[in-house]
Amino acid sequence: MADAERKLNNGKSRIDFQADPSKYRHWKLNVDGDVATLLMDVDEKGTLFEGYELKLNSYDLGVDIELADAIERLRFEHPQVKVILLRSGKPRVFCAGANIRMLAGASHAHKVNFCKFTNETRNGIEDASEASGLFTICVINGTAAGGGYELALAADHIMLIDDGSSAVSLPELPLLAVLPGTGGLTRVTDKRKVRRDRADVFCTTEEGIKGKRAVDWRLVDEVVPASKLEDAVAKRAREFAAKSQRPPTGKGILLRPLTRERSADAVEYSTIAVEFDRPARLATVTLRGPQAAPPASAEAMVEQGAEFWPLKLARELDDAILDIRANEFDVAAIVFKSSGDPAQVLAYDQFLEANKEHWLAREIRGFWKRVLKRVDLTSRSLVALVEPGSCFAGTLAELVFASDRSYMLIGKRDGDNKPPATLALATVNFGAYPMSNGLSRLASRFLADPTDLDRAKAAAGETLDAEAAERLGLVTFALDDIDWEDEIRVFLEERASFSADGLTGLEANLRFGGPETMESKIFARLTAWQNWIFQRPNAVGEEGALKRYGTGQKPAFDTRRV
Amino acid sequence: MADAERKLNNGKSRIDFQADPSKYRHWKLNVDGDVATLLMDVDEKGTLFEGYELKLNSYDLGVDIELADAIERLRFEHPQVKVILLRSGKPRVFCAGANIRMLAGASHAHKVNFCKFTNETRNGIEDASEASGLFTICVINGTAAGGGYELALAADHIMLIDDGSSAVSLPELPLLAVLPGTGGLTRVTDKRKVRRDRADVFCTTEEGIKGKRAVDWRLVDEVVPASKLEDAVAKRAREFAAKSQRPPTGKGILLRPLTRERSADAVEYSTIAVEFDRPARLATVTLRGPQAAPPASAEAMVEQGAEFWPLKLARELDDAILDIRANEFDVAAIVFKSSGDPAQVLAYDQFLEANKEHWLAREIRGFWKRVLKRVDLTSRSLVALVEPGSCFAGTLAELVFASDRSYMLIGKRDGDNKPPATLALATVNFGAYPMSNGLSRLASRFLADPTDLDRAKAAAGETLDAEAAERLGLVTFALDDIDWEDEIRVFLEERASFSADGLTGLEANLRFGGPETMESKIFARLTAWQNWIFQRPNAVGEEGALKRYGTGQKPAFDTRRV
Repeated sequence: MADAERKLNNGKSRIDFQADPSKYRHWKLNVDGDVATLLMDVDEKGTLFEGYELKLNSYDLGVDIELADAIERLRFEHPQVKVILLRSGKPRVFCAGANIRMLAGASHAHKVNFCKFTNETRNGIEDASEASGLFTICVINGTAAGGGYELALAADHIMLIDDGSSAVSLPELPLLAVLPGTGGLTRVTDKRKVRRDRADVFCTTEEGIKGKRAVDWRLVDEVVPASKLEDAVAKRAREFAAKSQRPPTGKGILLRPLTRERSADAVEYSTIAVEFDRPARLATVTLRGPQAAPPASAEAMVEQGAEFWPLKLARELDDAILDIRANEFDVAAIVFKSSGDPAQVLAYDQFLEANKEHWLAREIRGFWKRVLKRVDLTSRSLVALVEPGSCFAGTLAELVFASDRSYMLIGKRDGDNKPPATLALATVNFGAYPMSNGLSRLASRFLADPTDLDRAKAAAGETLDAEAAERLGLVTFALDDIDWEDEIRVFLEERASFSADGLTGLEANLRFGGPETMESKIFARLTAWQNWIFQRPNAVGEEGALKRYGTGQKPAFDTRRV
Repeated sequence: MADAERKLNNGKSRIDFQADPSKYRHWKLNVDGDVATLLMDVDEKGTLFEGYELKLNSYDLGVDIELADAIERLRFEHPQVKVILLRSGKPRVFCAGANIRMLAGASHAHKVNFCKFTNETRNGIEDASEASGLFTICVINGTAAGGGYELALAADHIMLIDDGSSAVSLPELPLLAVLPGTGGLTRVTDKRKVRRDRADVFCTTEEGIKGKRAVDWRLVDEVVPASKLEDAVAKRAREFAAKSQRPPTGKGILLRPLTRERSADAVEYSTIAVEFDRPARLATVTLRGPQAAPPASAEAMVEQGAEFWPLKLARELDDAILDIRANEFDVAAIVFKSSGDPAQVLAYDQFLEANKEHWLAREIRGFWKRVLKRVDLTSRSLVALVEPGSCFAGTLAELVFASDRSYMLIGKRDGDNKPPATLALATVNFGAYPMSNGLSRLASRFLADPTDLDRAKAAAGETLDAEAAERLGLVTFALDDIDWEDEIRVFLEERASFSADGLTGLEANLRFGGPETMESKIFARLTAWQNWIFQRPNAVGEEGALKRYGTGQKPAFDTRRV
């Protein structure tokens, strides 16, 4: 189910994105005061799929799921940590990058999803630095090749041992005929700002670059002799820690395992229900509003921990989206619904706003930001249905604005005593959750005329009925009960009838109007070219480089430049 | 040769990008004072390839070559024209877009090149508006579907007849499972700034949108009843003409046919020589410096007309690049060389700078800007070899900065009395020729540290030897005579050995660091996704939508979302 061409290991039928530090197979997380060491020590046998081994600290999606989990836990469970030392547990190798045999045998869909998730994880490392002052120092003691160097690129500071052999490299193009796809090219040009011709040399030199040239070319921040490495690492860690605004002390909260019950056509979480209508190729995600008022204080929020409604919902939504992405390729559209009391949702938004300087409130908002970005980047049609009894207010309204289309029912339904659908905006809709293009979803929506954004701002706090929401441009269509069923049915049937690839490309363009950032460039320019290359025979054909790597046979290329 | 799967019409073996208004088959250009009417009236039989007919004003690359030619001629031959009325010569149809049978039968390489050239032509229409005050008003009297509406999107103002049936549409996704690829999606979101959910509705509605909704949704600027159309068009033309800064009167210059002699492995132009080394998969383009000093005055420049060295060189370079792109798919790298007196090249740059308010000087610089953008977007490795006797100064130095790598020889060659290689910068290198990302090539090169750009500016006017150029970061490597031959040979052999597709993707990323603009988004985000879709079976497979369109058989889709 997860991947037609490959079997998941240990008889599993789905890729699971939840991880538990006590069961990590590839990472060792050691927290010592305000410095955490995240040691990459990949278990060769601990593969996600059958058919390959993870030699030389190479990775597959399973390794990255643990890494993403570790970064999140450092944010929530260890708020006092200010610096992550990203290191290798293997001698003479930092990381050999994405496992080539895994890639060579993966379906196109898995390759694309693998790259997307690993990019999100790298962005998460950068977000921890920017948003939380949780800095990463990458210590390269050996070879950092391909995805290994791309992982280093996510760090704030890259240290390379100066031992005459350790080097950084992006050998994907010469060795495999593909691009360094986990943000590599974009981070080289836009983050490290390596001069473009030097980047060209670097990305076409299999053996990579080491020593002083690696510093001169901006590929690493410093090279350090082996004898001085530990002292230098400790010194850098102290320097970065001194710059951090994270709380000096602080008890974290435990990210307990999610409540999750799966049946054939549904997944029941605590605050979310996912229903699959497989003949119609739909997944309906219903978000449930809070059952109780917000806690009385920030301390009470910490006490609730992972049970605190906004955090629980965000974690469950994240898992649901990842599950659909990786395991439900046949889902054409995700339909967002909600149920609950909009006033309660807004009360939680107000609570978080009032406590926004508190470390946990900040982390929860940051987590929502990342989950919503994950939604934006999900290659399924996104539809919001705003119906009686729903609670699309504040943070939850972002799902309406993240959707490709939204429909809102006017008034009550015949024979239904639920209150008419409403929509409500809050401060949080105007900047707390930027998209990867740097704009809020509403600013992206109202690119044409800033006064539309002003009108929406002026309506913040109001309870908007369907006609008011439509007038303000907040929903695509307001429909009455007579038209509702037919319109929605016809639309969803039509959507499922279109080309899956065509829709992916269409949505990837229409969702991101306006400016681009390094992050959006990674998912557009770099990813789109990589997806193209992942289809080309020079890479993936029987005689292509990815298939022939390690066989002793040279690849045979179609030499035509397109 | 041009297209393995299709035969060119009339026994031709190459696609020719030169056109002659007296032989246009698809466009009628009528100039009346300051208003030109460009009437699209496609000759069904006048196809570029065999095997299809251009019904309903649909187009192929041949139609677009004439359009691009007409726009250039309006800039040079008719400097007094301020407004172009883009209209259809056919009843009830404006333009049906790219011909589907042509697309369905085209090779992947031709599809990609077709989209690239048509995008450049649309950008050229917009550039005429921004840079020259030559505005375009599109008058849609009938159906503007797909590429037909995309053509309209390039205009400054779109008028749609309000006759109850005329509509604009982007039906590519529902009908053909591909994207509107000629800038369509990007212009809808970033130029017209259509709200993203409305754009979603529009791009999935085969029949398109007409009347008031087309205005409300920002798809067109106005709808006009048939009875009032001609008056309204005349009124708008007067309004736009009043805003134009083009010279009120002015004799144009004639863009005479290029001097071009082709042999098996070479093309000899007047100011350029192209040599093909087919076993090595190289095209060497040698640019020749001017033979004489610049003319004494702007009037004398007008007198020289198309013989004026900077214009002649730009036109010939443009043709050479287009010829390689469309006809020489097996060329892996374009090697730029030059020969001549750098002081003379700089003298021409100074002449144009001194006369930059003159309409012709402005047009020539604008033309160079577009040609250099064309070079940036050429999917061949670009290499500059700066050797003794070369004249890479000012404008010509831009080709060094457009290259993926540049090599400069230190000192003289043994037994060669040519003067050592030099490089020289001029004002023109710091803003006259922005790339599609909005930055000069040097600003793009020095993203990391603005003081590098300042150092380069301070060196403007100096004659830089190889070591000085390398120190300033202007060339990739300065090599001495002992290493030169081997280094260059090994590099070019290696380049030709890499995957053609991998290089295309690599260069498309490394060349465009930093910001993105609408124009760069068209060539990155939109084009890259479209190229991916152009490989996907849902579009191009035997059961795909592009292949099955018009057969009466429905396409069969792989429903998996990737």
